[in-house]
Parts: sequence; C-alpha cells; structure tokens
Amino acid sequence: MDWERVVRRLRERLRPDQVETDLAGRRVYGRDATWAEGMPDVVVHAESTADVAHVLRIANDLRIPVVPRGRGTGLAGGAVPKGGICLNLAPMNRILAIDPADGIAIVQPGVITRTLQQASEAHGLFYPPDPASLETCTIGGNVATNAGGPCCLKYGVTRDYVLGLEVVLAGGEALRLGGRVMKDVSGYDLKQLFIGSEGTLGVITEITLRLLPMPPARGALAIAFNRLEGACEATVALLSSGILPLMVEFMDQTTMQAVESFRPSGLPTQAEALLLLAADGEPAAVEADLQRMISVMQRHGGQLLRTAFDADNTPYTEELLEIRRNASPALAQLAPHKISEDITVPRSKIPAMARRIQEISRETDIPIALYGHIGDGNLHPTLLCDRGNPDEMTRVAHASAAIFEAALSMGGVLSGEHGIGLLKLDFVPRAFPIAILEKFRALKALFDPQNIMNPGKKLPPATHLSEEP
Amino acid sequence: MDWERVVRRLRERLRPDQVETDLAGRRVYGRDATWAEGMPDVVVHAESTADVAHVLRIANDLRIPVVPRGRGTGLAGGAVPKGGICLNLAPMNRILAIDPADGIAIVQPGVITRTLQQASEAHGLFYPPDPASLETCTIGGNVATNAGGPCCLKYGVTRDYVLGLEVVLAGGEALRLGGRVMKDVSGYDLKQLFIGSEGTLGVITEITLRLLPMPPARGALAIAFNRLEGACEATVALLSSGILPLMVEFMDQTTMQAVESFRPSGLPTQAEALLLLAADGEPAAVEADLQRMISVMQRHGGQLLRTAFDADNTPYTEELLEIRRNASPALAQLAPHKISEDITVPRSKIPAMARRIQEISRETDIPIALYGHIGDGNLHPTLLCDRGNPDEMTRVAHASAAIFEAALSMGGVLSGEHGIGLLKLDFVPRAFPIAILEKFRALKALFDPQNIMNPGKKLPPATHLSEEP
Repeated sequence: MDWERVVRRLRERLRPDQVETDLAGRRVYGRDATWAEGMPDVVVHAESTADVAHVLRIANDLRIPVVPRGRGTGLAGGAVPKGGICLNLAPMNRILAIDPADGIAIVQPGVITRTLQQASEAHGLFYPPDPASLETCTIGGNVATNAGGPCCLKYGVTRDYVLGLEVVLAGGEALRLGGRVMKDVSGYDLKQLFIGSEGTLGVITEITLRLLPMPPARGALAIAFNRLEGACEATVALLSSGILPLMVEFMDQTTMQAVESFRPSGLPTQAEALLLLAADGEPAAVEADLQRMISVMQRHGGQLLRTAFDADNTPYTEELLEIRRNASPALAQLAPHKISEDITVPRSKIPAMARRIQEISRETDIPIALYGHIGDGNLHPTLLCDRGNPDEMTRVAHASAAIFEAALSMGGVLSGEHGIGLLKLDFVPRAFPIAILEKFRALKALFDPQNIMNPGKKLPPATHLSEEP
Repeated sequence: MDWERVVRRLRERLRPDQVETDLAGRRVYGRDATWAEGMPDVVVHAESTADVAHVLRIANDLRIPVVPRGRGTGLAGGAVPKGGICLNLAPMNRILAIDPADGIAIVQPGVITRTLQQASEAHGLFYPPDPASLETCTIGGNVATNAGGPCCLKYGVTRDYVLGLEVVLAGGEALRLGGRVMKDVSGYDLKQLFIGSEGTLGVITEITLRLLPMPPARGALAIAFNRLEGACEATVALLSSGILPLMVEFMDQTTMQAVESFRPSGLPTQAEALLLLAADGEPAAVEADLQRMISVMQRHGGQLLRTAFDADNTPYTEELLEIRRNASPALAQLAPHKISEDITVPRSKIPAMARRIQEISRETDIPIALYGHIGDGNLHPTLLCDRGNPDEMTRVAHASAAIFEAALSMGGVLSGEHGIGLLKLDFVPRAFPIAILEKFRALKALFDPQNIMNPGKKLPPATHLSEEP
C-alpha cells in the first residue's frame, strides 16, 4: 500500500493533525484493555460524520482495513488493528440533545457513558446500562458490543435503549436507522444488526437513546456465603421468588481477597463467596425488596454483612457497589497477566457452571477467579497467568477452551457483553452451525462487500479450520 | 399452477385433513381483522416444525407464495393471501415449557397471548406485552408484528421479551436463533430481523420468551378532560415528571361515546377526552405513583373520575382497563366500516398530532375517532366510513394519506405495532430513503431468494411508482 498517497487523499478533507502517521502516536492505538497488540498504519481522528464518510470512501476505494475505536476499553481485542486505518471516534464526544419531553438523548459515539448518565441525571432522567468501565468507555463502543453491566438484570442491555442510529457504510454512505419513537414496525429493523456488530458492518456516528425517569431511591446489600454453591443456589432461588432485583453481583473468595487488598473495606475474606444485591424504585418498595432479599438469602445460608439504603442516591449504596467495580483492577494485581472471559449460561445452570470452572482450574493448574453478573447468568471467569511462561499459556488456552465448551454444552454463549473481537474468534464455529455462519457472512457482505470494516474480528473467515465437521 | 399436483406432494407427509382445498374451508382464511380480502388456493394446517419445513420445501420448489397465519387478528392485511398457500399455524398451540428457574417460557407460535399470560401467572410470572386482541391473537403473530399494547409503555414491546426463535426459511431449512440466555453478543443477532418481519423472511415455529416476576399490585385511574389538548399536554407533562406509569391510554369524545353505548360504565361523554392511567409494583409504590399521577393530571385540568387499586390484581383495575379494550369493537358499531391507523410520533408531538387529525377530519369530512397508547406516542386514529360509497372512500384515502404525511413530518412512523401488511404498503417509499429500501430488499432476498414468503406485504417491489423522486 502506498501510504503516502493514502495520507494525501485523507488530508484533502482533514486537517493534518487529524491524520496521524508517526510511530509514537500510532502506538497508542495499537491496544485495547486486553493483551492483544497491533499497529495501525494511520490513525484518523474523526470529528464529524462527514469525516467518517470521507475516510470510508477512500478506504473502500483502496481496500484498506478500518478499525473503529472509542476509548479502547474493550475486553476482546475488537479495536486492536492489524495494520490499516484506526478510526478514532473519541473526538466525536458531544451530547447533541437531551429531551425530557421525548424521553431521549442524542449523542455522538465518543460520549463517555458516565458523562451521558450525569447529563441525564441533571434532567431527572436515567440511562441504565452501566458497564464496569463506565467512567472511561464510550457509548459508541457500548452499542458496538451491546454492553451490559450490573443494572442490566432489571433494566436490560444497551440494545434496549437504542431508538435510532446513524451509521456510515463502507462506501461512505450514511444511513439513518430508527429515530425518536418508542415503537416502530414499519420496516426491517436494520439498526438491530449494528448493535453488537463490533464495528464489522459500518461505523456508528450518532445514537438516539431512550431515557427513563430516575428512580427516587436505591438500596444495596452485601451477603457472605461460606460455600460458593450456596451463593449460586441462593441466586437461582431469589430470581424464582418473585423479586426482580436491580442487580445480583457475585465474587468468589479469590476476587474478594484481591479487592480487599486493593482497597480494604472489611470484606469477609474467609468466606467462599460474596453477593452484592441492589434494588431501586420508590423508597417503600426498595425497603420491602431489601427485606425480602435478605430473607431469601438467609434461608440459603447467606450472612448479611452490610445494608445501604439511600432515598436519593447518596454515596452509601454507591460505596457498596464500588466494591464490585474494583474486581477487575484488583485481580490485575494478582498476576502478570489476566484473561477475563464473559460466558453467559441460563440462570439455572449457574451452580453447575461455577463448579465446572473450579474443576477446570484444578485440571489445568491455572488460578481462575470468578465474579460477574450472576443474576443474568453472565460470569467473568478470570484466568491469572504469566505470558512469559509458554507452558502456562498452553494450559491457559486449554482452560479457556474448556470454559467455552462447558458454557456451550449448558445452552450458554461465548460472550454476554464483551464481544467476540479477536480473542474468541476461534470458538465461534463451535457456537453456531454452518448455516448460521453462512448467513452471518452474507449479511457482512451485504453491508461491507469488500470486507474493509474491522476485518478478522467477530466472524471467522469461511476457510476457518475448526469449522470442518 | 397444477394445484392437484401441489396437493399430492403436500399430502406425501401430511394427513388429508391437514391440506384443505374446498372453497368453504378456504374462505375462512381469506381475511384478517381488516376489510382486505383474498383467497388461498390451499390451506395447510401445520402441527410441527417438520410440517412447516415440508410445505416450504415444496413451495420453494414450485415458487408458490406462502402466507403464514395465526388467528387472523391482524390490522394491516398481513395475513390476507392473494392465492398460494395459507400456512395456518394455529394448531401449533402448545406451551412447551415454563421454567421459573431460567425465567423463560418456550411456546409454539399458535399459543394465544392470554393463554401464555395465564400459564405464566400460575408460576408467579408475568409476560407483559398485551395487545388489545390478547384473548384471541397468537404469540407467533405478536412476534411477526412486534406487537405492543398498553403495558408496553413501562415494559417494552414483544421484541424486548424474545430470547430465542426457531425459524424455517423458504427452502425448508430450520435455524435456531438465540436461546435461553439473557445476554448474548456472540454473533449478529439474526432473530431481531424476524421480529416484526410480518412473515416475509421465514416462518417462526418456536419462541423462547423472557418472563418477569409478577408485580404484586396494580392500580388505575380514569381522568376526564374538558379539552382534548389538555389530555395531550397532561400526558407530555406526566412523562417528563419522573414517573413511568404502567400505561397512559387515551380516548377522545367519539370513542368514549361509542364505548359508553357499547357497554355503559358511566363515562363522562360530555368531556372531550379520557385518560386511563395505571401503575404496578409494590403496593406502597403503586399508591404513591397514583397520587403523583393524580396531582400532575389535576394541575393540567384533569378531573379524577375513578380510582382502582388492587393489591393482588383483583378485578377492579381490570374493569377499568376493560373500558380501553372496548374501544375498537365499540367504534365498529358506529359505521359500516372503519380503518384503524397506527401511527407513532415522538411524545412531545402528541398534542400537535391530535390537533392535525382533527383538522384532517374536518378537511375531508370523514369522522375520525382517536384513541391509543398516547404514553408512547402510538395513536390509533380510526376512520369511520362506508365502503359502498365511492366518494367517501376517496376522501378516506386522502385522510389516511394526510395522517401518514403528518406523522412522518413530525419524525413519526407509519406503524407502531400493527405492521405494514398490505394496507400501508403504498406509503413505505415515503417513509424510507431508497438506500434503505434497497437494503430491505437485499435482506429479503438473502432469506427468501425466490420471494415466496408473504410476497407483496411489508415491502413494496422495486418498481413501485411512488418511489420515484
């Protein structure tokens, strides 16, 4: 590829500082929050839909791969480039509108999730999806991975809030899909394909999101269990008992010990498991829910450690929930490297899955910390390892494969909220029959015939070895 | 077409009584709940996925149109055949599983919505989507039209409850899309395309639905307004005030008068508008919500007529909500024929849309009753007319077109929950740019290359006249 010519064409409509070519500058865009590494040939800092369309026209002409990127918090290598153009959307970070009468927000893809939440709260409105990285990650990335978070147990995932999208396709054509209405059955719902497509179908340049009224109160509980199975069984029992909690978050002993040494808060590190539960709504309803939750937990051997209750989202509940958000950074301290998997299983399979992960840890001699959104069956088994140790990395690969096999055999899926990206690509042919993979490829070809949009992510090529029967 | 040969092939795997050819029997399957009329050449009563696959293989071989059908309650002509095979899915009416531990139901497409709700309630579980025809309509049809209903204001539409689908494509191939998990970002979410596709992409043969815990209490209010604008403005104000009601349903004076003479319940027929509002949840929260709702309504000129409050879903609230469900049958008494439109506008545009509909009624001299799910901007303006009067029908066509134009110009859509079917087909090219229509057609061709699945519905052909600029 004649990169000088590419850069010249890019600069026909972009300022020189929007088109970055020096090595030091590009290196920053070679990574996400995993250990996957790559290097873009050029980084373009997009500031508008027109900028994006310009880049995609050139890239499509010259068949250059384009990797869209928000703030690089991804956990599957989805934004890691293997050459080509890194299209940085972080500069498109304006909240274009918050409209309480229509109950919507319109944002550019580079808006940080927490920024949108705060801006909504200023109007008494609530944007529920809350990935753990919400202080850093962007809405565009959230849509591209259909991001979840603890509150998604009650409120659903990012998809449930997307009313409209503007997307730019590989040839530079912009489409507006959906809009500001709450109900629409007038066409095929194309925007649904882009949600969770991990940048492989086009670039999301504007997002219209539904907002809810802010619930007036929130409360939370921390419950310890001597046995890990007890926590899993209590969760299944709670969710069958007529209560829909705001969240049910789980941590095993390893995770708790890591969090406690990362930021001490008096966690019972001798217990095998911790559940953090929360409820929101009218104050009286929250109090009633917390009481019912405590009683189900205690019936299943749970021990109430702490209760937080705020009528106006004061810090007590937030403090308790902060414990959960520290899980990932705390575990990062335990070993040179970690891999966080993201399987989801049907709720009833949670105890079996937790047991199987413990077995896999013993079988492969790889420490696996377990935490996650247990309420919706979405667990993040975290493999602790040292990439410098080849033998260990072979065992890590075996452990990951065994976790995926177990999830699939229980009716679960490879990823609940992180995406397939680069790192789970090899397992996709195990998760879908060939007939469905063929439809995936046909859809991809329909929107991106030259395969320039984030190629080699999400969807393995047709020649992929493991697809053979 | 050699129908004798078709019938012979169909009967190779189907009992004779599953393949209906006599005129009287077929006539029943020529209509839905609109005045559109057609006639299938053959009716097949499907009892299994294998039956459906058998029919679609033959139909695809011989290029015979197939119109899938539930109970024929559609309001857009979507299930009205123009020859070909009517594929009656009503016999596939088994609830295959209700699993409280996983919080799901698995049903065949012919299960009646209310039947699923009752079966769920027996487990303390709640299936929220509640189209007005819920005593008769089927889940398959609900998925095919992404059906809504009053409760969808708080709980979302059918799409929000679909976790998994089994679909049979035109060639007879069955695909399982999604499953029992609450979160999944491992492939492109193909099932989303089938939701709201109105039988044009394939036949839905099994549906896995998410169920919620049953809220313990429900309450409702009836509020009268002297001025129609007052009701519209009160709705916008209520939804901007931090409350998310279970529903906000609206009726204008014509609708109220019709309902009152259909089944008298003391409605204030001298008022210009009625709002029915409801809340659900913990009893204390419901009481608090009702009080806040009353106070917003009164601030905007509303007059409280009745309050219903049940801690255990006793009949009081149901009685009040029954008023709303009578709107459509009651209006049917007012004139020889009626057309119920199904536009949705952004919430803030409700007052302007209501005013515009009144103007259109005056301009065309066609009585238009107005009711609907005003809380989510989804209105059902109902044109009262006599099909035997050609001049009147010309004015009806003008009135419908003017309503669609108004909705589109306000950022609204042609259909919120009924679908495009046959009756709104002409307006689709006004609602979407050519680039999007082309993607719709490419998607259709991807799943149904020979265009046998409900052809001539949902999506106008590429040669459609009004598409020219």
